[in-house]
Amino acid sequence: WAERQSVNAAASLEHIAHWLEREGWIRNFDLVAEGDLAERRGREFSDSEIYKFLEALAWEIGRTGDAGLESRFRAIVDRVARAQDADGYLNTKFGHAGQEPRWSDLVWGHELYCVGHLLQAAVARARTRPDADDGLVAIARRAADNICAAFGPDGIDGLCGHPCIETALVEFGRVTGDDRYLAQAALFVERRGHGRLGDVEWGREYFQDESPVRQATVLRGHAVRANYLAAGAVDVAAETDDPVLMKAVRAQWRNAVARRTYVTGGQGSRHQDEAFGADWVLPPDRAYSETCAGVGSVMLAWRLLLASGDAGYADLIERTLYNVVSTSPATDGRRFFYANTLHRRVLGASPDVERPSIRASAAQRAPWFEVSCCPTNVARTLASLAAYVATTDDEGLQIHQYVTGTIAHGPADGPERRVTVTTAYPDAGEIRVRIDSDDDRPWTLSVRVPAWAGQGATLTAGGETRPVAPGYATERRTWRGGDEVVLNLPVAPRFTYPDGRIDAVRGCVAVERGPLVLAVESVDVPGGEDLDELRVDTSQPPTLADGRVTVRCRRLEPHDHDWPYNGSEAAPAATATADLLEVPLIAYHDWANRGPSTMRVWLPTI
Amino acid sequence: WAERQSVNAAASLEHIAHWLEREGWIRNFDLVAEGDLAERRGREFSDSEIYKFLEALAWEIGRTGDAGLESRFRAIVDRVARAQDADGYLNTKFGHAGQEPRWSDLVWGHELYCVGHLLQAAVARARTRPDADDGLVAIARRAADNICAAFGPDGIDGLCGHPCIETALVEFGRVTGDDRYLAQAALFVERRGHGRLGDVEWGREYFQDESPVRQATVLRGHAVRANYLAAGAVDVAAETDDPVLMKAVRAQWRNAVARRTYVTGGQGSRHQDEAFGADWVLPPDRAYSETCAGVGSVMLAWRLLLASGDAGYADLIERTLYNVVSTSPATDGRRFFYANTLHRRVLGASPDVERPSIRASAAQRAPWFEVSCCPTNVARTLASLAAYVATTDDEGLQIHQYVTGTIAHGPADGPERRVTVTTAYPDAGEIRVRIDSDDDRPWTLSVRVPAWAGQGATLTAGGETRPVAPGYATERRTWRGGDEVVLNLPVAPRFTYPDGRIDAVRGCVAVERGPLVLAVESVDVPGGEDLDELRVDTSQPPTLADGRVTVRCRRLEPHDHDWPYNGSEAAPAATATADLLEVPLIAYHDWANRGPSTMRVWLPTI
Repeated sequence: WAERQSVNAAASLEHIAHWLEREGWIRNFDLVAEGDLAERRGREFSDSEIYKFLEALAWEIGRTGDAGLESRFRAIVDRVARAQDADGYLNTKFGHAGQEPRWSDLVWGHELYCVGHLLQAAVARARTRPDADDGLVAIARRAADNICAAFGPDGIDGLCGHPCIETALVEFGRVTGDDRYLAQAALFVERRGHGRLGDVEWGREYFQDESPVRQATVLRGHAVRANYLAAGAVDVAAETDDPVLMKAVRAQWRNAVARRTYVTGGQGSRHQDEAFGADWVLPPDRAYSETCAGVGSVMLAWRLLLASGDAGYADLIERTLYNVVSTSPATDGRRFFYANTLHRRVLGASPDVERPSIRASAAQRAPWFEVSCCPTNVARTLASLAAYVATTDDEGLQIHQYVTGTIAHGPADGPERRVTVTTAYPDAGEIRVRIDSDDDRPWTLSVRVPAWAGQGATLTAGGETRPVAPGYATERRTWRGGDEVVLNLPVAPRFTYPDGRIDAVRGCVAVERGPLVLAVESVDVPGGEDLDELRVDTSQPPTLADGRVTVRCRRLEPHDHDWPYNGSEAAPAATATADLLEVPLIAYHDWANRGPSTMRVWLPTI
Repeated sequence: WAERQSVNAAASLEHIAHWLEREGWIRNFDLVAEGDLAERRGREFSDSEIYKFLEALAWEIGRTGDAGLESRFRAIVDRVARAQDADGYLNTKFGHAGQEPRWSDLVWGHELYCVGHLLQAAVARARTRPDADDGLVAIARRAADNICAAFGPDGIDGLCGHPCIETALVEFGRVTGDDRYLAQAALFVERRGHGRLGDVEWGREYFQDESPVRQATVLRGHAVRANYLAAGAVDVAAETDDPVLMKAVRAQWRNAVARRTYVTGGQGSRHQDEAFGADWVLPPDRAYSETCAGVGSVMLAWRLLLASGDAGYADLIERTLYNVVSTSPATDGRRFFYANTLHRRVLGASPDVERPSIRASAAQRAPWFEVSCCPTNVARTLASLAAYVATTDDEGLQIHQYVTGTIAHGPADGPERRVTVTTAYPDAGEIRVRIDSDDDRPWTLSVRVPAWAGQGATLTAGGETRPVAPGYATERRTWRGGDEVVLNLPVAPRFTYPDGRIDAVRGCVAVERGPLVLAVESVDVPGGEDLDELRVDTSQPPTLADGRVTVRCRRLEPHDHDWPYNGSEAAPAATATADLLEVPLIAYHDWANRGPSTMRVWLPTI
């Protein structure tokens, strides 16, 4: 992750700044200030990209204190500030001379959505630089007040076609201490699900407007919207102490994860409406698994983790970070996947690096998109990764994600405690946690044992090693500096079998290693691009040698015929060659970094 | 088919007329005549529905001579005539006061497409009532002349976003004997494939504009467009004696049928752009298999059959008529499937019978659609079925499709010959062909043996029975009235296995009977709607008893778990019950006629 964060800071942020200027999306703010919007460019939600970029900068500045980023941040905040109306309204697409009026298109206009991202940027800034004088929090407060005035109990009885404002208002309420924002968020959550957004081609489910949040049983519809909304509902439930709402969202999450989520953690199996499919509809080749849905899923699972302490939420965060969020950016940080397919069947051309690509149409990672939500979403997530690593409570410290680094914690009324984590995870399974400070009171160190570890994990503490089951392994002591706890996770590569109800991958296995989903990419396979002819021999486990994972395969010799459906199994199924090949696999998130290729995560068995 | 044609005539045509008036799409023609188009309703291609309805009426009048339909036909033709501009231009959406100019949106405007359907209606009328004085052929001629003037070699260097005009011009040239129409069609075919239509979200492939027709190797992009275009290209190739073009289209068809076609004959596996997927991407649960793509596939295969005499084309026509075109209309002829999924996972609500449905969103058949291309397309196809049954050449008579009826044929310079076909096909495999006229010259009777018959078909002629292989079985004689030839096709139900490269149905079988694809529908299954838990025992063939086909199944007892991907096959795959169920199947085209249900064509095996 350190490498990923460095690339994010050094390349992605610069790359995003370049494209935001080039496409004119920052300039739109200047146009509002200048009073002439004839040349406004970009879609109705382009403002949000600037805010997500500000959020990424805020986290990155918090991480490294980079002065160059700080001045870039301040410059953009100044341009945003000048575009804000006197009453706090802030949007470059609506409400000014020559434009449609404010709030005239709640279904598709994304005005509330954009403010949601503005608030999230302000929250990031307030958390990382609470005393900064840049003005972003004040801008956000005026925008939030404007929304409360417009959409409060006596205001417009409406809501946004794209959830985002809900979680943003609660979070902003937390950093400002103003309860009105929570009340407004709760109102937006309750207003959804009654058909106020009307009918669209893909049905009300697209906006989660067909069923109230507290009645729905599963995440459904547009996968980004679904996750953002659920995140907001958890925030509201947590802050208003509403166990019914919390229970509803937990059930929605559980059902979505058990039946509507790819092995990568990716969500959304439909290209048409970027939506969750029905239960068990998880085609790898038409997987949408949108990058931003992965970001939303991390946001949701994090909130549920905080609310419950259940390790399953941290498991999904880990899986999604390693296999969706990490898959989107190229190793150079300058190209991105919008959608993350699990099976690429035909070689695709590299997108033109000088032109924005059309969403999910790019076969390879693209530098920018007409709807360019993923670069900024990836950037803000990578820059804020440290926030997902650990939590504290009265009992002590809980470590959820494993990265090398130092964690400072401790009770409000006591001395700071420090622990240092050292690990080569996920390449190796050993995670060493060293206590760096003496203590005179006992506290509990909890470390997450992922579900994928099965019965294979051990914990060594005080010189004794014991097996630990999935969940949180705990050690409670009065710690001394130099004490060490070592968690060992079984990261040998393994075959993974799908539920028999997932039709699209019946008769297939995936290969995983620790939290990583692996994939076969054609550039590694002797005999070329046609991966569909490989059949895996699962009688032996995958092999790990010199850091390289391989599986044994035979290659089909397909019989071509006029009609692909026949009266006997033998004829169409073709015969396999006698020769066994050792086929190498790579981490799925690394695929498509070596030119056009085909790729498979799920491999048919012999 | 007789029953289907009766329902089509008695119910569907009336139903369509009702909705065309109700939605205002016929009235649009009156508005042009009245000079005020402010209240024009419907999409840019709504004119085409009126023309397809006229074509259906023309075929039906040809079949039965119904006087009521004849007067309805003439009334609509009169209304169309009054909307035609003096120079022949005919369209209710463009080119009049307050509208966009003619030909201003070739990509999406559908102006040429609409005229294509007008010409097809005129061709149907000219073939069935060559001497009618209704004026439709004259209207069509003026419209075709207008197009030749506008888009000729010296005219607009453009083409239509939706192919249709190509085959229509060639056919219209055949009935009028005017070669200019063929030349214009050839020009349109050659203009495609050079990017003249520009870029759209789904890529140039959507319009088949990424590669010239004579260079493409497979049908691709929007499945209706692909079939209509290829049909036109075959027409052009046949009439201009262009073996290179013909060979290209034959190869495209062959590859599309071998790798991109559902077992039903359905084509198009993508909802997003109603398009062919890549090779082997044929998910049953997200099958689009648009009704109109099936109609287009029949049109294309028919033209290739005429050009080549290869039985494989007639095989696909049979499969597509029985399993796609027949599936769309409900048994009452008043509701239609727009898309024809092969797997319905969840119960769907019945669409509102008083409101047009949104395309493929309806879970059940719907009375009408906002884009309502299928009802009229089904109606014209069912009304014209007789045209697909048989052909003649210098050698004699070829029977391609088996229906009870009388076929009159004979050489131009000889007496009429008559044969009578008697059969209960496809419920029974016996097809009796009786010669009804004496002859003094020998001629060849050819009867098609479908590929699905394998080695199981026999032909009895002159008292001798012999096995006949797929293709055309022939008998050449100097026939006498009363002579009889009996073809016996093996219509016992059978298991069908998919090519091992079709990932989405790996480990599954379908059940077929003769040309019919069968399906399991939940209303027939003890234990309710969850068909995903059934596993078929293929150790015994399907059983046929009392006209009812059954297969033996076990039911899974799925283990619910938090995460559907696990380290061992046993856990997620669940265990099957010991009890064997006899599960009944129905013809796929009959499903969804008994209320909300779930359904599967492809059944996982034990």
